[in-house]
Amino acid sequence: MADAVAAPIAFSGNPLDRADNLRADPDALAGMMNWKARLLLLDGLMPSMDDGGRLAWGTLADAPEDAELVFLGLDRADGGEKACFAAVPPQGDARPRMANPQLWSLMTSLAPDQLALYGGARSLVDWHARHRFCAQCGGSTKVAKGGWQRTCTKCGTEHFPRTDPVTIMLVEYDGKLLLGRGLGWPEGRYSALAGFVEPGETIEEGVAREVLEETGVVVRDVSYILSQPWPFPSQLMLGCMAYADDDAITLDETELAEAGWFTRDEVQAALEGRDDAPIVAPPPHTIAHQLFRWWIAQ
Amino acid sequence: MADAVAAPIAFSGNPLDRADNLRADPDALAGMMNWKARLLLLDGLMPSMDDGGRLAWGTLADAPEDAELVFLGLDRADGGEKACFAAVPPQGDARPRMANPQLWSLMTSLAPDQLALYGGARSLVDWHARHRFCAQCGGSTKVAKGGWQRTCTKCGTEHFPRTDPVTIMLVEYDGKLLLGRGLGWPEGRYSALAGFVEPGETIEEGVAREVLEETGVVVRDVSYILSQPWPFPSQLMLGCMAYADDDAITLDETELAEAGWFTRDEVQAALEGRDDAPIVAPPPHTIAHQLFRWWIAQ
Repeated sequence: MADAVAAPIAFSGNPLDRADNLRADPDALAGMMNWKARLLLLDGLMPSMDDGGRLAWGTLADAPEDAELVFLGLDRADGGEKACFAAVPPQGDARPRMANPQLWSLMTSLAPDQLALYGGARSLVDWHARHRFCAQCGGSTKVAKGGWQRTCTKCGTEHFPRTDPVTIMLVEYDGKLLLGRGLGWPEGRYSALAGFVEPGETIEEGVAREVLEETGVVVRDVSYILSQPWPFPSQLMLGCMAYADDDAITLDETELAEAGWFTRDEVQAALEGRDDAPIVAPPPHTIAHQLFRWWIAQ
Repeated sequence: MADAVAAPIAFSGNPLDRADNLRADPDALAGMMNWKARLLLLDGLMPSMDDGGRLAWGTLADAPEDAELVFLGLDRADGGEKACFAAVPPQGDARPRMANPQLWSLMTSLAPDQLALYGGARSLVDWHARHRFCAQCGGSTKVAKGGWQRTCTKCGTEHFPRTDPVTIMLVEYDGKLLLGRGLGWPEGRYSALAGFVEPGETIEEGVAREVLEETGVVVRDVSYILSQPWPFPSQLMLGCMAYADDDAITLDETELAEAGWFTRDEVQAALEGRDDAPIVAPPPHTIAHQLFRWWIAQ
């Protein structure tokens, strides 16, 4: 994608080697679960921080007894090789789960590689916590393949971590961009339209359907720009560009509070956070923000 | 994407209007479930065909009593408007589920719009059949939102149809393409490397990881080419192009039987099915085949 996106997109750039060949090797996994192994310290699903403002790590002794462990990968920094794990919170754990103000602040302060490592671990751990039972038969499941699978203890069905593709798109007409304000969003806060890809459609079809559903706008010439893993809980955001031949909007009021077309100057003003900006732009760690930047640079 | 791909990619181009606004409207849904509604006739998960070689339809009276119905969308052909449904097979139904030779033959004979309609319906129906229980608590789930959701009858958790993003990529070095033969595939049958996108990575990171894991080849300059919905059971195939700076291969023998580099002439010969072709190309309804065609046309 364009060089206009200066930094790597937030939540990408996980520095660990996922070492997937080790996942299917129970002996190798067991051999790594020793005193040298590192445990990512989580408070529920929230990260814990060390004094240097980086993710805090402990040892496997810090995991609750009988906790299920997931293998995040190998840390090959400093010439060594450390196996990194995270523990699935015990069933019924009421500690922080959802994104909250503390987390939004972390997104701007954590180094990109730290944020990526946390995001990937969070998605995986959260998936385990919400998949303790088999969707096929209702039996209980247990962790397998180092945390990259759960297996039903009753019927043997194998379940795999879920990643949900979501299209998010800029739509341009006459030099202006179609943006929307979601239901319940603060006054003035606008972003790109977005929606889950459904079974039976391409990315391009998903983009066209979503824009049509939410605004009645017909698009053409859909192109992919960049993607982002988004760990709340586990989306793959597919950033696209599309064009319209008409600017008439028919709002789907069950999805959006408002939608409108905004000029290059207006989007630029929003990115800069200027007082005269007609809208508030999404924050920098979002793919929408990066799409805005990319569009301005075209 | 390039015009080199003549026809729409297989399983895209569903002619139904998904009419998602109706899904959340129980009254509207109930109102559509009348004598005019059409039921896609399935034999397990296999399509039934009419005398004209098109998908066969019945009425809602053809669904098993108490069957869960999913709303596929509105058929607006011929100036009318018919609501289209499919029935989830009863629990324990042993009729055909997996892709079989009959289905592979259908893929070449069904009109593109018919194939797309069937593929989307198959993914959705199959998801329901495999998600009768709540992964969160083990309780039984029931269909909701016209089949675009299941809700737990015990804890109320909402579950949504799953779509799994998979990268599939051409890797080029010195004018040659890196292809692999999967374990158990017939001698000579090669395709593009592929793998599921994991939580915490972009499309581009997924491509690089997968190629590295399977062949030891390092890639750069990953670009997205085209996508395809693949209904076995419900993948979103993300076709990409990438480049390598070295052709040394270290095979992951748990994933691939063979991998090698093939020239433009060799790939062209395989696409034409020529006797002197060193490999057998994937069939035309696969995204790998379309990627091969795209690459040749570059």
